[in-house]
Amino acid sequence: MNDFMAAAIEEARRGMLSGEGGPFGAVIVRSGEIVSRAHNEVLATNDPTAHSEVNAIRRASALLGRFDLSDCEIYSSCEPCPMCFAAIHWAKLRTLTFGCTKEDAARVGFDDEFIYEVIRGTAKRAQVSVHQAGRESAIGLFEEWERLSSKRMY
Amino acid sequence: MNDFMAAAIEEARRGMLSGEGGPFGAVIVRSGEIVSRAHNEVLATNDPTAHSEVNAIRRASALLGRFDLSDCEIYSSCEPCPMCFAAIHWAKLRTLTFGCTKEDAARVGFDDEFIYEVIRGTAKRAQVSVHQAGRESAIGLFEEWERLSSKRMY
Repeated sequence: MNDFMAAAIEEARRGMLSGEGGPFGAVIVRSGEIVSRAHNEVLATNDPTAHSEVNAIRRASALLGRFDLSDCEIYSSCEPCPMCFAAIHWAKLRTLTFGCTKEDAARVGFDDEFIYEVIRGTAKRAQVSVHQAGRESAIGLFEEWERLSSKRMY
Repeated sequence: MNDFMAAAIEEARRGMLSGEGGPFGAVIVRSGEIVSRAHNEVLATNDPTAHSEVNAIRRASALLGRFDLSDCEIYSSCEPCPMCFAAIHWAKLRTLTFGCTKEDAARVGFDDEFIYEVIRGTAKRAQVSVHQAGRESAIGLFEEWERLSSKRMY
């Protein structure tokens, strides 16, 4: 097996055995070297967004001092949930390698299919009730943004 | 307009004018009171996951000392991206109210449709090259998790 996947799995094992979160780990690699290692820390931090891939991205970005990780790749012990998969896109990572599938994860109690279904529009029941309000004011903010001369696009 | 949406828009304006990130803000509300306020901080922190909704969730979770925000609701100045939308589900928030649509955001330079398309399976071109490797080892970790007597499910 690939050394980077082995490192992601080892990181997952550390997090699981320390009780910091579920059995998930990820590493971010640049030029053949591991930049960051992270595991799920939802239980340790009470942060529901502290999944291994998000944590690995946050750490790599902090270490490299940039939000663009397009020269990096990510290895995750499991197929990412939609939050992490989208985070991988925002970080501009070009390559994702995962070990277990999301179906494997569901079998041990971590099922994210309901979120995938909501996003795909195939969910039978929504967990979140979604409403729109105040667009007239919110759109004014976007107009201010367009006029803002000091802005930095990204 | 709803006071909470007004607060989310004001928070977005603060972040935009301070140069910390794009024009996006969110607040989390519990029992009619604002628990947390946040704006996009991608530029200020170099963290590509520092969107307003994720930041608001992190802050509310830290303040309340729990990852389950099912007694809270979120107001966002703009329709959430897939990362934030999934984060809202992981946080178990029951109600989401947004101001601008994602089409409005795309018109001012913040287009997340490519991520929605990848998740829906309708993307013509993928940004991220996705591979699977090492499932035999990764699945062993899930088997260890199942045997782990000390684990806390969540």
